[in-house]
Amino acid sequence: MKPETKKNIALLGSTGSIGLSTLRVVGLHPDRYQIVALGAGRNVKALIEQIDNWHPKAVAVQDEASAALLREQLHGEDTPEVLVGTEGYVGLALMDEVNMVVSAMSGAAGLIPTYEAVKAGKAVALANKETMVMAGQLIMAKAAEHNTQVLPIDSEHSAILQCLRGHSREDVRRVILTASGGPFLGMKRGEMKDVTPEQALKHPNWKMGPKVTIDSATLMNKGLEAIEAKWFFGLDMEKINIVIHPQSIVHSMVEYRDGSVIAQLGVPDMTIPISYALAYPRHLELDAGTLDLCEVGNLSFEAVDTERFPCLDLALKAAQAGKTMPIVLNAANEVSVEAFLGHEIGFLEIPRVIEQVMALHRPTEVNELKSVMAADSWARETARELIRKKR
Amino acid sequence: MKPETKKNIALLGSTGSIGLSTLRVVGLHPDRYQIVALGAGRNVKALIEQIDNWHPKAVAVQDEASAALLREQLHGEDTPEVLVGTEGYVGLALMDEVNMVVSAMSGAAGLIPTYEAVKAGKAVALANKETMVMAGQLIMAKAAEHNTQVLPIDSEHSAILQCLRGHSREDVRRVILTASGGPFLGMKRGEMKDVTPEQALKHPNWKMGPKVTIDSATLMNKGLEAIEAKWFFGLDMEKINIVIHPQSIVHSMVEYRDGSVIAQLGVPDMTIPISYALAYPRHLELDAGTLDLCEVGNLSFEAVDTERFPCLDLALKAAQAGKTMPIVLNAANEVSVEAFLGHEIGFLEIPRVIEQVMALHRPTEVNELKSVMAADSWARETARELIRKKR
Repeated sequence: MKPETKKNIALLGSTGSIGLSTLRVVGLHPDRYQIVALGAGRNVKALIEQIDNWHPKAVAVQDEASAALLREQLHGEDTPEVLVGTEGYVGLALMDEVNMVVSAMSGAAGLIPTYEAVKAGKAVALANKETMVMAGQLIMAKAAEHNTQVLPIDSEHSAILQCLRGHSREDVRRVILTASGGPFLGMKRGEMKDVTPEQALKHPNWKMGPKVTIDSATLMNKGLEAIEAKWFFGLDMEKINIVIHPQSIVHSMVEYRDGSVIAQLGVPDMTIPISYALAYPRHLELDAGTLDLCEVGNLSFEAVDTERFPCLDLALKAAQAGKTMPIVLNAANEVSVEAFLGHEIGFLEIPRVIEQVMALHRPTEVNELKSVMAADSWARETARELIRKKR
Repeated sequence: MKPETKKNIALLGSTGSIGLSTLRVVGLHPDRYQIVALGAGRNVKALIEQIDNWHPKAVAVQDEASAALLREQLHGEDTPEVLVGTEGYVGLALMDEVNMVVSAMSGAAGLIPTYEAVKAGKAVALANKETMVMAGQLIMAKAAEHNTQVLPIDSEHSAILQCLRGHSREDVRRVILTASGGPFLGMKRGEMKDVTPEQALKHPNWKMGPKVTIDSATLMNKGLEAIEAKWFFGLDMEKINIVIHPQSIVHSMVEYRDGSVIAQLGVPDMTIPISYALAYPRHLELDAGTLDLCEVGNLSFEAVDTERFPCLDLALKAAQAGKTMPIVLNAANEVSVEAFLGHEIGFLEIPRVIEQVMALHRPTEVNELKSVMAADSWARETARELIRKKR
């Protein structure tokens, strides 16, 4: 392979699952990647280990207490600079040496540093869902303005990117997002009423955090991904279809107007899409498992039943409404899922709360990050209020 | 779509199945394609209809008798020039106005005009298997020398082309050719002994001519396609794998070294790969059916059992041996299949004859078309001799 500029990476969310996988990919190609900055939350112990291994120039943690604990334990000559909070994460992303930001912090916290990185023209590998769901229009406008590459890390959007590559956007008939269907795929709506958080947390194919796993059980995750796809690839929502594919081997597909369908397949291992985002448009050697289709045997596909999965329907409606509505959907969903996980509301009340919050919302244009945050806060409060009244 | 140079097409094999499908594609985009020349065999009636519809400047038929019959029936002002035989087909391919040759004549007859077209720098859309199996090395060397684009028309190689497009050749781990497995997929070797031509001619997914259908039942077609893939895409044989996929929906796949697999899918309709070859690298609007994976339901995959399908094994061995050996394999196969269709030999004797002919052959380098033809003739005679002795 021809040599090229080394990628100096600021990894935000380094101690989470995507962060750990990113470090695994980086470790396989030390000639191509260098970790310059690590942003973590409050897991100081894990961060210290990472500092020992990767020798970043700067790190950031979520709060002053974690920063104090960290500083106490850092000694020696190449001790990194320690920054704190959102300002700290932004500081890492904007470091001169950094030419790629891996945005892998979960929740709305990942949005601001990502936005700043895009505005600074740093290439962004994006795992944080909220960035595109809440501020896709803003982010893509800024990316175009500053000629910034924003590459998806999650498996579905990486698949779409790979299936679009080398073919003309003009020729796309539709994009087909695959959904595992989650743990309740075959369950009747009536039976879902009594589903417990413990049951919902058992995802058949991927190991993920609790919030994402519940989103996968309600199919909200697929709705959010459809919204992300809209912004990532500049697609009309009518061109985005969803199909249930329980084996999670086909990560997504693109159908062209001659009827040809390009699909991307692979074992469920996040290092594959991470590696593609880091090496784009190349595929570098990786130690992820090889897909053996003969061993898998069967790939099955079925239509989505939005009757049984109203969260998906709500997400598509929010995307159609546009403006601040997807922000409201996302916020109301986060609050509802948290309430479900805390046994405050039932599984079927998740979509009901979201629907009520959406019904109360008057969407407005999104021109700046402030309007994003305002809509987010309003929706969270409204959702909490509704949940309080339910109890 | 931006306007580009109109493609002036010489269609060789216009009255066959690929020829008819090509005309269907051309008819959908009269702004992009123009039929300048039509080459047919002896089906004068069908050719006359095509002349009425497409107004070519020149046509060619297989022999003087057909030419005489044709001239008798052609009247009017825009009567095309009538050429005859191989020289006639070459004449069509080399016409000044022609900038793309669709090579869809079956058998070795398609080889010479294709070779001449490549040498003249005309873009070639290739459906003729023999060209690559017999003279792949020569053709690709000439294509490189004359900067000629040689594009595959059959569904597997079109799939590979589509899956490679936009990704780096250096990053390819392997190419996975899919095989329907033919009508005898589940049959034990013992049961194959008494298979009749009539049984072998029932292909589950594609409608094709008798020779190709038998090749599909013996899996020789997949072996020949592997040899073609080697030349089309400059692959080592070790990088070409074959997997059984009875539904013929996934037309082939490419696995990259990060474990990512790109696949091309579609309904079994030859207009899709034809259209891709004509419009490459674009996908133009087509009236082929849309793939509905929910309707298909299941895609299954299993390993190939070369014990039960020795023809495939012979093809891979011939490819490994290289030089004139694939020519000998192909010729011995043609003669054996013809003998099987004529009830001269049994189904299981097809690979036996081929193996014997291959064992008698000393491969030599292929430097010119003459050495190709010599090896071809030798193998045919040797195979016929062996079959005569068997009776």
